[in-house]
Amino acid sequence: MRSSQWIFIWLTLLIASVGAAFGQASGNAEDAILAADRAWLKVYAAKDLDKSVAFCDDAGSMLVTGSPIATGKAAIAKAIASDFANSDLVWHPTKAGVARSGELGYTSGTYEMRFKDAAGKMVLDKGKYLTVWKKEADGSWKVLFDMFNTDLPPGAALPPA
Amino acid sequence: MRSSQWIFIWLTLLIASVGAAFGQASGNAEDAILAADRAWLKVYAAKDLDKSVAFCDDAGSMLVTGSPIATGKAAIAKAIASDFANSDLVWHPTKAGVARSGELGYTSGTYEMRFKDAAGKMVLDKGKYLTVWKKEADGSWKVLFDMFNTDLPPGAALPPA
Repeated sequence: MRSSQWIFIWLTLLIASVGAAFGQASGNAEDAILAADRAWLKVYAAKDLDKSVAFCDDAGSMLVTGSPIATGKAAIAKAIASDFANSDLVWHPTKAGVARSGELGYTSGTYEMRFKDAAGKMVLDKGKYLTVWKKEADGSWKVLFDMFNTDLPPGAALPPA
Repeated sequence: MRSSQWIFIWLTLLIASVGAAFGQASGNAEDAILAADRAWLKVYAAKDLDKSVAFCDDAGSMLVTGSPIATGKAAIAKAIASDFANSDLVWHPTKAGVARSGELGYTSGTYEMRFKDAAGKMVLDKGKYLTVWKKEADGSWKVLFDMFNTDLPPGAALPPA
């Protein structure tokens, strides 16, 4: 073949691979980030501290109501350990999105938390959350920011469901 | 020139433009998303409801403490109007990031809010926020999610600074 034919073949492969890279934002990427969200909930609900912290990026932050921003794995471990000691939490993603480039995305939804109030009575809190995820070099999704707040007005707490 | 030379020139331009597209995540894109964050603060601090709502995507959500998720411009307008009526808010971005593909990003930082408590006394709340931004077809950045929560423990409120 002439060199122009080789260039044409290489060009076609290049365009196909660029197209594939830009195509990542569709169904598959959102399924993958939702799978990461569910996998995190699984170890969180089981109160596995090491595995829960391992879902966070080294420079990740948890933005917890009642405390300043906790950044880095040591601060995040402290925040999660406190959460595990004081409450039972589940969450339900309702939205997920991933950038076309495939390395940044979010999940968001609602949560329910059971905890003991100051009087030792079990109460239910309901609210919402927003998590920003980053895809690491090894292909795994890690938490860059995680934040939640209550739907309930100050002082309100529901009886446990 | 031979056709292979034209192909080579076209190829060089193609690679350069793909490189430029992937390079968007660097300084310029973060500057642009921080500029959007500051521009939103400007109209928000001025309590300009129409302009503040216009910064949100049509499918955007505000995740406000004490209320369920507010999605869409009508619900967001209600949430912002209530905020304007009850408090004075400023925020300070400390982190920003944009996906390599340039259409999804975030800003995060701290806020201070002055408001009247139930007894009519002016108090100061301090906390943090997380905003997820989407670049629209016209090149403008719009709010996809905005969320904040307090750093202060329940019932705590500082005197106004």
